[in-house]
Amino acid sequence: MTVQEPAAHAEPAGIRPAVRAVPAYPFTSIDVPIKLDQNESPYDFPEELKQEVYRRLAERDFNRYPDLHADALKHLIGRYEDWPHTGVVLTPGSNVLIKILTELAGIEQTVLTTNPTFSVYSLEAQLLDATLVQVPLNPDFSLPAAALKTELARHKPGVLAIAQPHAPTGHIDTDADLLELLEAARDWVVVIDEAYHQFSGTDRRDLVRRYPNALSLRTFSKAWGLAGIRAGYALAGPEVAENLQKLVSAFNVNVMTETVLEVALEHPEYMKARIEQCLRERARIQAALADHPNCQVLPSQANFFLMRTPNADLAYAHLLAHGIVTRRQDNLHMLQGCLRVAVGTPQENDRFIAAMKAFH
Amino acid sequence: MTVQEPAAHAEPAGIRPAVRAVPAYPFTSIDVPIKLDQNESPYDFPEELKQEVYRRLAERDFNRYPDLHADALKHLIGRYEDWPHTGVVLTPGSNVLIKILTELAGIEQTVLTTNPTFSVYSLEAQLLDATLVQVPLNPDFSLPAAALKTELARHKPGVLAIAQPHAPTGHIDTDADLLELLEAARDWVVVIDEAYHQFSGTDRRDLVRRYPNALSLRTFSKAWGLAGIRAGYALAGPEVAENLQKLVSAFNVNVMTETVLEVALEHPEYMKARIEQCLRERARIQAALADHPNCQVLPSQANFFLMRTPNADLAYAHLLAHGIVTRRQDNLHMLQGCLRVAVGTPQENDRFIAAMKAFH
Repeated sequence: MTVQEPAAHAEPAGIRPAVRAVPAYPFTSIDVPIKLDQNESPYDFPEELKQEVYRRLAERDFNRYPDLHADALKHLIGRYEDWPHTGVVLTPGSNVLIKILTELAGIEQTVLTTNPTFSVYSLEAQLLDATLVQVPLNPDFSLPAAALKTELARHKPGVLAIAQPHAPTGHIDTDADLLELLEAARDWVVVIDEAYHQFSGTDRRDLVRRYPNALSLRTFSKAWGLAGIRAGYALAGPEVAENLQKLVSAFNVNVMTETVLEVALEHPEYMKARIEQCLRERARIQAALADHPNCQVLPSQANFFLMRTPNADLAYAHLLAHGIVTRRQDNLHMLQGCLRVAVGTPQENDRFIAAMKAFH
Repeated sequence: MTVQEPAAHAEPAGIRPAVRAVPAYPFTSIDVPIKLDQNESPYDFPEELKQEVYRRLAERDFNRYPDLHADALKHLIGRYEDWPHTGVVLTPGSNVLIKILTELAGIEQTVLTTNPTFSVYSLEAQLLDATLVQVPLNPDFSLPAAALKTELARHKPGVLAIAQPHAPTGHIDTDADLLELLEAARDWVVVIDEAYHQFSGTDRRDLVRRYPNALSLRTFSKAWGLAGIRAGYALAGPEVAENLQKLVSAFNVNVMTETVLEVALEHPEYMKARIEQCLRERARIQAALADHPNCQVLPSQANFFLMRTPNADLAYAHLLAHGIVTRRQDNLHMLQGCLRVAVGTPQENDRFIAAMKAFH
């Protein structure tokens, strides 16, 4: 047959409009000494544990597929969390769980969350044709329980996503507020995103035990200091877990992640010691900036905090000039003038405090 | 408020019916000496390259997020494949790419493929509410070009998925047949799945260059011998790649996979030597069983082959009793009596040949 030059169908019609409509993620990596923009742990995985990982990797075959569904890790996580392994679902990062939760109950249905919320919930809802419903937080950043209940009643059941501590505010709600929502959301898949729960000392597993349509999302990226390894998990009832697991791509967790998590779960003490230091440092930063004329550190129960300034643009640039990168949040509802700042090492926090004291 | 025991809403109404309808993947791991069931490389990543990986990992922070979109690797893969890095999309396994391709152009639209086909295409179509259209292969396993063109004209554009070599038959089609389909599918996202292309010596990058709505899927799991590391990629035009990238979860490729691929791409010679051995062994097995009264080894251009027997159940059990696990395919359209067998090491293939010679 004769082949002409193809027409300029660079974006074939088959690409779904919802995907076209989302702008490409504009990301410029910034190379500065002090990274406080991704809520990472400021400390690497302990060196002696890394060595143990390499010793165990010597026994693993790189050429063989890993566990189909990370079954060995499900048992280890189940033991650590006192949770049946049949209710554990593991993926490379909890953001993958948010994608597949949207696939489980969001596509052509509803994703209900707050405004602001962790951006991956709204992004996946847009990409996957869920009706995205966002209810503004109360002025004190607490959950708007009544308004959420109204929306629960109004929409086709789907995913209700609540972060505890909330991201990006760091706010914690009461068990009573959560119970009220869970009672109203029995037809929904209710995600309690506990990515930062070690820093708040809260734990909503009891709620998930009582409401088998709920689940808790947890991650190795924050308190465990393993953001580079990519691992997050859901604790759910067996029926929700079984359906969610169908949406996890086979062999999704690689042999190296398996090995690192194995070693980490055998040594949780390293992680717990770091949490205490993080909480002391968070309090120290808040105290040091309490009287600052031009910035207000907002209360937070996480390893980060919001800082409100008269002009986020200026504050961000000022910190960058001092070698510190933070995350702008001033484009979000209710967060005019806000930057999000992770708690760093004591030395990094000293530099941050000094830089902010020089900000007029 | 008073909280009663929740009703037995174990599967909340919000879980989409399409997900409920798919049975949970029934998988029992079988521990036998000779694994010929997953089309893996029989050889591990070379030990000296593993040591180089560990040396480089010592410079990497486990506590920091990896590249948002694996940008450094896109450049390396681009250089290896002579492809613009803006057209490379990398995920933890090419099965993740199949999921997001279904998200890109399948949801509420169409996934058109052959019957049989690689099972992930049909599974994701079912889970994600795509209309799944499967056209039977011709009796010689070649592409049913005319029938596929009829379906292309009949359905709302979506994903057209063609594997080359085909899985699970190992068949290779002509460029002319592929061109005919590409001409008819300009509104579709056309996936040419080249997971096994190193074994057939075929390469359809030229077609993808001519048709910017097409893409080639490739993997590190087969010829590169890195199934445990989880990495696959698409080579596409920049517009398709940009939209596909939006659907990849952020930070999806971890620091260890980054490091292993870096080292592998600097040493492709280890992979190329293994391919030659695999082809020699494939020919040797076919010759050794050519006169077998009870089994027929079908031609294949991949690192596996189909073997037709009067009773797949008996043949499978017979091989298992000899310490060899294969993959049953006798439940698939046109593959009555068939097992799928990967080419192993020469010693493993000797054992396989001997076991089959004892099969009456």
